[in-house]
Amino acid sequence: MSLLTVGTVAFDSIETPYGKAEKVIGGACTYISWAASYYTDDIRLTSIVGHDFPAEEIKTLEARGVNMEGLKIVKDGLTFFWAGRYHENMNQRDTLTTDLNVLDDFDPELPDSYKDSKYIMLGNLTPDIQIRVMEQLTDPQFVALDTMNFWMDIAMDRLKEAISKVDLLTINDEEARQLSGEYSLVNAAQKIFEMGPKYLVIKKGEHGALLMSKDEMFFAPALPLALVKDPTGAGDTFAGGLMGHIAQTGDTSFDNLKRAVIHGSAMASFCVEEFSLDKLKTLDKDQIAERIKRFTQMMSVDL
Amino acid sequence: MSLLTVGTVAFDSIETPYGKAEKVIGGACTYISWAASYYTDDIRLTSIVGHDFPAEEIKTLEARGVNMEGLKIVKDGLTFFWAGRYHENMNQRDTLTTDLNVLDDFDPELPDSYKDSKYIMLGNLTPDIQIRVMEQLTDPQFVALDTMNFWMDIAMDRLKEAISKVDLLTINDEEARQLSGEYSLVNAAQKIFEMGPKYLVIKKGEHGALLMSKDEMFFAPALPLALVKDPTGAGDTFAGGLMGHIAQTGDTSFDNLKRAVIHGSAMASFCVEEFSLDKLKTLDKDQIAERIKRFTQMMSVDL
Repeated sequence: MSLLTVGTVAFDSIETPYGKAEKVIGGACTYISWAASYYTDDIRLTSIVGHDFPAEEIKTLEARGVNMEGLKIVKDGLTFFWAGRYHENMNQRDTLTTDLNVLDDFDPELPDSYKDSKYIMLGNLTPDIQIRVMEQLTDPQFVALDTMNFWMDIAMDRLKEAISKVDLLTINDEEARQLSGEYSLVNAAQKIFEMGPKYLVIKKGEHGALLMSKDEMFFAPALPLALVKDPTGAGDTFAGGLMGHIAQTGDTSFDNLKRAVIHGSAMASFCVEEFSLDKLKTLDKDQIAERIKRFTQMMSVDL
Repeated sequence: MSLLTVGTVAFDSIETPYGKAEKVIGGACTYISWAASYYTDDIRLTSIVGHDFPAEEIKTLEARGVNMEGLKIVKDGLTFFWAGRYHENMNQRDTLTTDLNVLDDFDPELPDSYKDSKYIMLGNLTPDIQIRVMEQLTDPQFVALDTMNFWMDIAMDRLKEAISKVDLLTINDEEARQLSGEYSLVNAAQKIFEMGPKYLVIKKGEHGALLMSKDEMFFAPALPLALVKDPTGAGDTFAGGLMGHIAQTGDTSFDNLKRAVIHGSAMASFCVEEFSLDKLKTLDKDQIAERIKRFTQMMSVDL
């Protein structure tokens, strides 16, 4: 079923202890859409780029069944650019440059053909834009929103308004604490459910992901890897796999959300193995199935 | 079957954001033995205390089936004392005081009745003592060793000698990195297997525990809790539940080690809910079974 993906499409320059990548393709919406494209072929991308964005990247996504009608190309503008350097432990990074460029004036107007989208993945962006997208939807079945501490620092009220409208919120553990004012993730989750969402995924990077509803809890480990080359986009790729699976199955039961979290984790485990989208672009169904199997093995116990 | 437990028996003074406990009972061997006592009644404790250690604590452990013949009581000495303060996030702590006292001269001579012990849990202590214990065993079936970065800093060679003799090593993620010189836990594990152990458990505190063999991997989450009052002894309690289950079942297959890791995680989740041994002393089989069930629910997914 239809999956609307919203977020940045960007250039990234990345330094990690394992190498450098200069002005490669990045952006939340790019990672989300690539990951989801392995699950469903009715993806509707919503973003903005400048004249400098390569036409072939757009074609490649189109060839994977991603509708690019919602990608606004600003002829006299430049694509959003982010540069960052990861520390030795890969869990921390310094932002070196953030050039908003065309993103500064992004006012997402959905094409008519997008408005009936059933499944929605709102990647990290200003809460204003996230709300603006939701206002244009005619029949959303399940809306997921990703955000970050930056918006909690500067636009908490508007962010809470956005959060109040969604079914699933994905944030990391520190953000869950900041948003709720509670240190314990169990208590943080209960506060967040009072804000509106029915489900919460707490992303813990190399430590896995915790899916919670008011009454249920599920933990998906991250796959330990011999080499993590570049963590950029892992959270977005996770979201893409998760919502891709949900859109593919049309099932938003807690049991299926559990499966979706494993699919998200599997896709994220591919993402970090190479810089940028290098690995994500090369996958096939067998590789994904094999990786899902490794997750199953890692989690299965007969008590 | 018989479980030999070795480690400190101590007094702790603990400060956490949730309160203070002054000169309460602590020590690796105490936590290990209490946790294991819910699994097997043939526990053989090996440690040392001073004249100031309460006789009733010894009696309480004896009443739980713990053989205290191996507890040396030094009439003119004082019990090992540790004081620490936890930071807001509970993952870090500062040591305020370490008074080795009687521990300074601890030379563990096993009672004859201990020497045929089948399952061995060597709690964190000097590698010298851990080796000295192993040298006295006549028929060990499965030896687990816990250690910490401190011994890697000051006695790496001797520690590696100790590690070369054991079946299972339990350490945290930073220690696995320090011991192996590898950042990736997958690579760290392979280096550690070359040192001797067949199995490795990487303890990640609130992020769970990773069990590895050369070919297999299993991840047990930690149970998210509304309140963690005092993390002291959680790792030892984990080890006690783990080895208690192994001694109870007499099964050292990877499948059973997986179960053992869940039992260890369940016991640790009780431990941190109250200061010192306050919670661990009050458990019953139903409570443990209920908690194991929560772990199962948190991990079960039908892919």
